[in-house]
Amino acid sequence: MPVDRLAARVGSTPFFAYDRAMLTRRIQLLRDTLPAGVSISYAVKANPMPAVVQHLSGLVDAFDVASGLELRTALDTPMPAARVSFAGPGKTDAELAQAVAAGVTIEMESETEAERVVAAGRRLGIRPRVAVRINPDFTVKGSGMRLGGGPQQFGIDAERVPALLKELVHADVDFLGFHVFAGSQNLRAESICEAQRQTVELMMRLADESPLPVRYLNVGGGFGIPYFPKDEPLDLAAVAANLRALVEGSIRPALPDARVVVELGRFIVGECGVYVTRVVDRKESRGRTYLVVDGGLHHQLAASGNFGQVIRRNYPLAIGNRWAEEARETVTVVGCLCTPLDLLGDNVTLPPAEIGDLVVIFQAGAYGLTASPTAFLGHPAPAEVLV
Amino acid sequence: MPVDRLAARVGSTPFFAYDRAMLTRRIQLLRDTLPAGVSISYAVKANPMPAVVQHLSGLVDAFDVASGLELRTALDTPMPAARVSFAGPGKTDAELAQAVAAGVTIEMESETEAERVVAAGRRLGIRPRVAVRINPDFTVKGSGMRLGGGPQQFGIDAERVPALLKELVHADVDFLGFHVFAGSQNLRAESICEAQRQTVELMMRLADESPLPVRYLNVGGGFGIPYFPKDEPLDLAAVAANLRALVEGSIRPALPDARVVVELGRFIVGECGVYVTRVVDRKESRGRTYLVVDGGLHHQLAASGNFGQVIRRNYPLAIGNRWAEEARETVTVVGCLCTPLDLLGDNVTLPPAEIGDLVVIFQAGAYGLTASPTAFLGHPAPAEVLV
Repeated sequence: MPVDRLAARVGSTPFFAYDRAMLTRRIQLLRDTLPAGVSISYAVKANPMPAVVQHLSGLVDAFDVASGLELRTALDTPMPAARVSFAGPGKTDAELAQAVAAGVTIEMESETEAERVVAAGRRLGIRPRVAVRINPDFTVKGSGMRLGGGPQQFGIDAERVPALLKELVHADVDFLGFHVFAGSQNLRAESICEAQRQTVELMMRLADESPLPVRYLNVGGGFGIPYFPKDEPLDLAAVAANLRALVEGSIRPALPDARVVVELGRFIVGECGVYVTRVVDRKESRGRTYLVVDGGLHHQLAASGNFGQVIRRNYPLAIGNRWAEEARETVTVVGCLCTPLDLLGDNVTLPPAEIGDLVVIFQAGAYGLTASPTAFLGHPAPAEVLV
Repeated sequence: MPVDRLAARVGSTPFFAYDRAMLTRRIQLLRDTLPAGVSISYAVKANPMPAVVQHLSGLVDAFDVASGLELRTALDTPMPAARVSFAGPGKTDAELAQAVAAGVTIEMESETEAERVVAAGRRLGIRPRVAVRINPDFTVKGSGMRLGGGPQQFGIDAERVPALLKELVHADVDFLGFHVFAGSQNLRAESICEAQRQTVELMMRLADESPLPVRYLNVGGGFGIPYFPKDEPLDLAAVAANLRALVEGSIRPALPDARVVVELGRFIVGECGVYVTRVVDRKESRGRTYLVVDGGLHHQLAASGNFGQVIRRNYPLAIGNRWAEEARETVTVVGCLCTPLDLLGDNVTLPPAEIGDLVVIFQAGAYGLTASPTAFLGHPAPAEVLV
């Protein structure tokens, strides 16, 4: 569908559009590549749009959620509660009660959280399903963000897990297994493979010592997607081959029935969405041409370079209604906010654009709308559609 | 009011609390210091909470708004429409129509915007009130953010303003004057004084050449507030003395009746608010103690160091229910989001805190809630109260 027709169908700009067929193909790619029997869990935080989560519920094996709202969104789909996991530091008592009542798996992030889970189960008269999130004793190289190794707010230090497991023997909980999530947005297959090797080794060591049977091994994800010209796509085949060797060589001999889970968010949805915003003004200032659009960092904070990036780089973008035209003008694309931070494309070469044209920003399927300050300056919320 | 009583009164954590009496004192400080006859305009974007804007409507002389919603918030107060200005790049036709119909002053950011304002006036049969936002031919040193000088998306290059004014003679608009806003969050009085001198010189030069009478001079603001231990508060008296000399020496002799406006947001509200969040978990990890709170960067993005800062530094914070206790424990305060970016206090020394305690983050009155990704991970929106 041409972008101008899509914009007319949505009825307003700016908007996010996600592609149902691309989502399906993305999961098919994972199915075709990852070893058989490995479960794919979708991290709802990457894109919690209900239609996206509904669509994925028929394609993935599990959901991971990070809040009470994400939990409800997941439970509104046909996904069985037993295939939903809830991870994250700082879970409130209300959220723990929700999770216990729903029967989802709580990935416990500290010893005190374990105590609070047990208390919630006692109050509700329901046996909580739990796993232990481990803060590993290694770090992953090449991750966009590191969530494991050294001191961390995430998970329980690996060396303290055996003591907790001994406590859990006496607690009224249904212990399932382990979760490690050591880093995200990694494009280096070798780093992911190394993290998987260390993760499985750690998990098998802890399982071996565990007084409780281990039936669940969530080995995390961290598969990155390319955002910038020099980014090479992840070599998924290499990651899959490594995982196959670990499953067949290490996990299956010891734990033939354990469910092995890979948890992915950005890798599933990131490339399946675009952000579309209309040119409201075109202006010259001292030798530079600006395209001012009706969207901005209030909808796409990461694309402005203000969310976790140390160096700002342009997300890929195009003039959506001028695909066929030659890129022969260098312009700066800015949002409509009164701040110089609201920069979407710095010195990008595009076909000459006019007021009314549509700027398309790619790689906008993950950590877009919900990871942006939508209320900043009070502009209307953008639409979201699944096409 | 003790923080635990305040939290009980609000009914939930996390929350923002703004102090009515401090806001009043802040305006009084400006009245006592700035030269008589200079108007104070509040930039609503800094904190658009309706109760705050209502309270300030009785204290300041004018409001500046940056969107259709902020415009409606301003018009819902007793502030006369003629004392409301609307600035910002990328104003949509719908916003321009709102502004023309309301009778507020549109600070035009480009020649094409000027054309669209004229067209909106024609469509509505209403003569638009307009001012020209000038992109100055100088830059301000020491600003947290620079919004003027060199090529900019903000305003019309100073050297092109005379040509625009000639066009406006023939346009059906009510031309009022000029606006310059060259930078924000500046703690160096000398830099602000220099910017004011250059701004007034530029405006007087353009007014002198203007074929239309100049009745409005918005000289901007940019007055900073201290966030970090080494920040010295702005020497407001020095800024006021400089402005007095400019008003009396340059402006009044040439334009005795022009309204001179100083536009301030952060300086008015920034120090008048706190963000309060409860400790949900306290955990040790490899020698470091973490306090995990029920809030985080989804409410206070700037305090996490992820909004315009190059180097992350801690905002001032305290354990609100342990004021009297000795700070003798070094901890890391993190929010409840599944990301290492969600860091509120890195290695801060505080009284030993327990689960249930209240962490208070100061300097949270400006660019807090609305400048944060509230929907990230789907946690409930925080409350906001004006006390």
